[in-house]
Amino acid sequence: MVQVATKFKNIGLMARMGASAPVRETLVLIIDYLHQRGLNPLIDDASAAWAGIDTPDIQKVTRTAMGDACDLVVVVGGDGSILAAARDLAKSQTPVMGVNRGRLGFLSDVAPEEVLQKLEQVINGQYTLDYRTMLHIEIKHNGKPRFEAMALNDCVLHAGKSVHMIDFELTIEGSQVHRQHSDGLIIATPTGSTAYGLSAGGPILHPSIDAIVLVPLNPHALSSRPIVVSGNSEIKIKMASNRVDAMVSADGQNSVLLHEGDWLHVRKHPYKLVLLHPPGYDFYAACRTKLGWHNDMD
Amino acid sequence: MVQVATKFKNIGLMARMGASAPVRETLVLIIDYLHQRGLNPLIDDASAAWAGIDTPDIQKVTRTAMGDACDLVVVVGGDGSILAAARDLAKSQTPVMGVNRGRLGFLSDVAPEEVLQKLEQVINGQYTLDYRTMLHIEIKHNGKPRFEAMALNDCVLHAGKSVHMIDFELTIEGSQVHRQHSDGLIIATPTGSTAYGLSAGGPILHPSIDAIVLVPLNPHALSSRPIVVSGNSEIKIKMASNRVDAMVSADGQNSVLLHEGDWLHVRKHPYKLVLLHPPGYDFYAACRTKLGWHNDMD
Amino acid sequence: MVQVATKFKNIGLMARMGASAPVRETLVLIIDYLHQRGLNPLIDDASAAWAGIDTPDIQKVTRTAMGDACDLVVVVGGDGSILAAARDLAKSQTPVMGVNRGRLGFLSDVAPEEVLQKLEQVINGQYTLDYRTMLHIEIKHNGKPRFEAMALNDCVLHAGKSVHMIDFELTIEGSQVHRQHSDGLIIATPTGSTAYGLSAGGPILHPSIDAIVLVPLNPHALSSRPIVVSGNSEIKIKMASNRVDAMVSADGQNSVLLHEGDWLHVRKHPYKLVLLHPPGYDFYAACRTKLGWHNDMD
Amino acid sequence: MVQVATKFKNIGLMARMGASAPVRETLVLIIDYLHQRGLNPLIDDASAAWAGIDTPDIQKVTRTAMGDACDLVVVVGGDGSILAAARDLAKSQTPVMGVNRGRLGFLSDVAPEEVLQKLEQVINGQYTLDYRTMLHIEIKHNGKPRFEAMALNDCVLHAGKSVHMIDFELTIEGSQVHRQHSDGLIIATPTGSTAYGLSAGGPILHPSIDAIVLVPLNPHALSSRPIVVSGNSEIKIKMASNRVDAMVSADGQNSVLLHEGDWLHVRKHPYKLVLLHPPGYDFYAACRTKLGWHNDMD
Repeated sequence: MVQVATKFKNIGLMARMGASAPVRETLVLIIDYLHQRGLNPLIDDASAAWAGIDTPDIQKVTRTAMGDACDLVVVVGGDGSILAAARDLAKSQTPVMGVNRGRLGFLSDVAPEEVLQKLEQVINGQYTLDYRTMLHIEIKHNGKPRFEAMALNDCVLHAGKSVHMIDFELTIEGSQVHRQHSDGLIIATPTGSTAYGLSAGGPILHPSIDAIVLVPLNPHALSSRPIVVSGNSEIKIKMASNRVDAMVSADGQNSVLLHEGDWLHVRKHPYKLVLLHPPGYDFYAACRTKLGWHNDMD
Repeated sequence: MVQVATKFKNIGLMARMGASAPVRETLVLIIDYLHQRGLNPLIDDASAAWAGIDTPDIQKVTRTAMGDACDLVVVVGGDGSILAAARDLAKSQTPVMGVNRGRLGFLSDVAPEEVLQKLEQVINGQYTLDYRTMLHIEIKHNGKPRFEAMALNDCVLHAGKSVHMIDFELTIEGSQVHRQHSDGLIIATPTGSTAYGLSAGGPILHPSIDAIVLVPLNPHALSSRPIVVSGNSEIKIKMASNRVDAMVSADGQNSVLLHEGDWLHVRKHPYKLVLLHPPGYDFYAACRTKLGWHNDMD
Repeated sequence: MVQVATKFKNIGLMARMGASAPVRETLVLIIDYLHQRGLNPLIDDASAAWAGIDTPDIQKVTRTAMGDACDLVVVVGGDGSILAAARDLAKSQTPVMGVNRGRLGFLSDVAPEEVLQKLEQVINGQYTLDYRTMLHIEIKHNGKPRFEAMALNDCVLHAGKSVHMIDFELTIEGSQVHRQHSDGLIIATPTGSTAYGLSAGGPILHPSIDAIVLVPLNPHALSSRPIVVSGNSEIKIKMASNRVDAMVSADGQNSVLLHEGDWLHVRKHPYKLVLLHPPGYDFYAACRTKLGWHNDMD
Repeated sequence: MVQVATKFKNIGLMARMGASAPVRETLVLIIDYLHQRGLNPLIDDASAAWAGIDTPDIQKVTRTAMGDACDLVVVVGGDGSILAAARDLAKSQTPVMGVNRGRLGFLSDVAPEEVLQKLEQVINGQYTLDYRTMLHIEIKHNGKPRFEAMALNDCVLHAGKSVHMIDFELTIEGSQVHRQHSDGLIIATPTGSTAYGLSAGGPILHPSIDAIVLVPLNPHALSSRPIVVSGNSEIKIKMASNRVDAMVSADGQNSVLLHEGDWLHVRKHPYKLVLLHPPGYDFYAACRTKLGWHNDMD
């Protein structure tokens, strides 16, 4: 996280899918404020439709064009909305600021009642940038990729619709690790370590670490434990037996079948999500709020 | 476990589905031995077909008739074969002795090389009976059962093919317990506690305990923990939200959808599986072998 | 828990050690109320001194005499105060009602602001009795007990002041279980399962279960897991090597050394603690409050 | 790990404290071999005494002088022997090769029967160097250090001889993390993550990661979980209440009291332990052997 002073003129807005009245309210508030400040608000087509933003004073662009068109994107929703936005914005390295409507998130850390005050600070150059590792996920058959995805949180290998465990072989950096019999495996970034990985018994990874964590899902062998590997690791998985169809999901998106003979490759994506935090952001404060940690330290 | 002296004349044989040559070999060994001893071996149709047992000197009955036709059933296979047999034999309370072909099991504790010696002891009245709790599982709609099953290991509520968590409300003995957001819930007998429940972080329950254990699957809330309740508890579950289709599986059998408005009821089944152990059985010895526990005690 | 109608005339009062002003306030409130109702309040010497209760209108008895002198004892403090009282009251089977001053407890479930209303209900015969299993702990040398204790929560075997693990052999009901290399072992009642046992990764046991749970403390072998055994089990432990002095503590009281050649015996105590709950008690409600479980069920 | 070709002429030998006959045997084997090769073996005073090496043909130096006197040190013993050697050798950055006598270790990865063959390869320049992070531990009072230690595995904060939990406040990189009520905290390097940290539920960290893991010991709050932080983090701990004396231990050495008003500081040590591996070393192979992981991958 580096303190950088910059000018934001074209400021994009994105909303949660199925955006509710409070989301619309916050969007309108921001649009009015940006006009007052003589800045240029933009919104993507989908968000405009979800939130019913249909005024002529705001430019509409496609979701995939947002990154290039904007200097900063404000996402109003929750951590899930930022997860979705990350896939569209990572390529252009456009900074993203998250405003939570609903519960405070790990990624959407600005409360709606303070949004204008925080935006003011950001426009004045008071903010930190927080580069979040993303994953590059490929399914290869005979060495050729037949599926590709990127993920901010995690890649989950699972048994699909079955209640039966899957058997797979794990290789990291060319070293055979082990053959695992389990419900599957979560391969998570530090960002994802506080999401599904945590539910499955994985550790919390501070966002600043260059690492990937592998968390087994209900492993048959009690000696299978979460492993934290270097962020530069190449992780490869092959099914060891095929009685059960394994599936792969990126950030909880629709799952894809992992066929016999396929290899799942997961490694750090060359792009990172650039989170922008107004002053006052603290990762551990988010942990305390989200996880209910105790704090009598003051 | 009570020491009982009894005479077994009609001795049934059951085999693992897809029985291999070693299974057949053990079956033939037992049949020959029983004939020598002047006893009456029987085999179920399915097992006879799987193992290719087609001699006229052995009586064939249907799988469901085995319980009433036999004084004792010997299952040759693994713990999975006993799981399947339990559903057919529990009603008649016919004792079951498990011979493992493959790895030693928690339920199939007789090794193939000692099967005749152990059978001799059993026929001479040297054995213990071990009554294993089973579960009665019902899905009710508007108070009427629309699905029923029994299970020796567990009833698993899960998210089906989805990677998204399910939301459900848990009630035990009429008391609301909590609303849980997780991948699902394992409701296991003591027998099932050393199976899937253990992989999911549950405790080991000694088979003699009259209790049921509830093990949450990757719960969102870190405070959700395994709960051990009385064996007489009535456990009820209702979906709290229906964004994701929940499914129910008994002993890993095909899953059934839990629709909106359905209630899942789980309680102790009136029938128990009667396991018969030759002399030398020890639950903790099975734990040491199966779980790799250390034993320098001798 | 059985609904019983009974008359309480001699009602004892006990307070937290080092009782504060709020504890005294609640005691005075109860004493006045009992006098109004024509009942006979008693207090033990120690509680009277701690809380500064020195009026001539209340009879003082020794702590150990409280059980026989009273028909009901009200403990004002927290779960720790009931833990201490249990050791004095279990022999006489006098029911105990817990009023929490401080945080709500699992055992002290009456809030101070509702104490008179709840007491009224209890005196009128509206209450349930909840018999809690206690442990009998012995250290034997050459077959002779050289230390005895009772515990409502747990017996903890630990490494004393050392940071090195201890090695011990565990026997249950005459069966050798395993040799364990760990920081120690918690042997807990259902009541204790929501205390230290839970911190160490053990399951929650409903208080109605006749069972004891063994929770290993940071075991070297990843296959060592919590085990729930019958409440009638005789648990025996012997040190396997003596490089480190092991110690034994009952309910967190001062630890006693377990010497070479000693055996630690733990089994259910013949006495139980009789908890008395006014209407409205619910074990799972206590779990929700104490553990932060979610409840949207109403 | 980088492949480097180098010449080792002065080769030190260190042995396990209380070295047994097999340790002596391996030492003599190595000494003879080094003489044959025209190299110069050295041994430290303590190891010579423990192993009874008293021949005039080997130079003896003090333990603390070994690092400067040698180009390579071979430690014959187990992981514990390397732990002890690390504190003496880290300053000089002398590479250490571990020969296990007893069980295979994570650090002592050369088997005694292959020691000469492996040594041959090493002397011929076939080896990899593996730089292991160590911790610098300080206890400060009024800003002045009153205790200092280094550790290869971990720094453990614990409750000393008490069975009561301790209360402390944790600060990382100047950010308040939380107040914890637990049996203590393990602060471990990647090397230590497969030792005590693993027993306490922590993740495995690959040795190549620049990170430190904090594993709470039986925390009262179920939401307290292992946290992996950057290797550059400054970790500070202060007792929040002082009912119980907390103690600090480095690599399982004698514990030191943490007084009221003291601060415990833990950060990466400027020195690293330089492990030297002959060809064939594989971290995951060590995991498979030590943790019993399954490998059917070949």
